[in-house]
Amino acid sequence: MSETSFPVAETKQALEEGAELSPRFDANGLVAAIAVDAATGEILMLAWMNALALKLTLETGEAHYWSRSRGELWHKGATSGQVQKVAEVRVDCDQDAVLLKVRPQGDGGACHTGRRSCFYRVVEDGQLVVRP
Amino acid sequence: MSETSFPVAETKQALEEGAELSPRFDANGLVAAIAVDAATGEILMLAWMNALALKLTLETGEAHYWSRSRGELWHKGATSGQVQKVAEVRVDCDQDAVLLKVRPQGDGGACHTGRRSCFYRVVEDGQLVVRP
Repeated sequence: MSETSFPVAETKQALEEGAELSPRFDANGLVAAIAVDAATGEILMLAWMNALALKLTLETGEAHYWSRSRGELWHKGATSGQVQKVAEVRVDCDQDAVLLKVRPQGDGGACHTGRRSCFYRVVEDGQLVVRP
Repeated sequence: MSETSFPVAETKQALEEGAELSPRFDANGLVAAIAVDAATGEILMLAWMNALALKLTLETGEAHYWSRSRGELWHKGATSGQVQKVAEVRVDCDQDAVLLKVRPQGDGGACHTGRRSCFYRVVEDGQLVVRP
């Protein structure tokens, strides 16, 4: 098992402008992670990462998340085949969110419902409508 | 003040395939919200919404969030001028994340550092590098 801790930024300047990866995990040890299709820019899903998931994502080049519902590390696609090859990893200004640009493998889907993206419904007049 | 509660989906089927907006707020009463530039598709920021912020976003057509750091409702741009006009609101499969397609007003920025997007740094060999 690789080292799973990350440094903590000492100053706001270091956090926002520094070169050191120092993710700010929340009280549950998680950061939000957005996965975007590297080829099309489509938003595929929002998931969560703990330190180990982030470390494994960076080390293996395949997206790893923390499943809040199952309470376990989740190598995306290990079961479904929907592995996400990681083309780029970004962090936001205060390093509590991660953006992954990925190349979906398998059937090309990201969502457990079988769709490419989890964001398949639009709010229209207070109702949800399925839209491409 | 408008009604700020949302219905709770009774079944997984209703949650994932239904037409009823029934967001699943977490233990802190929040869902994650991704803001994307409606014109370019660029990922601008990740923020949080409580029920009131989501309701106001839908009612006013301008993005409202919950500021975790300040512990208060946040009408984006009320101070900075970086109002986000909302073109579309989506929810994900299990309705614990929201996707906003927005038209940034003011100087066109979304990030408090002055940049268009909060995701201005890429992880390269474990270090953060500023990249367009």
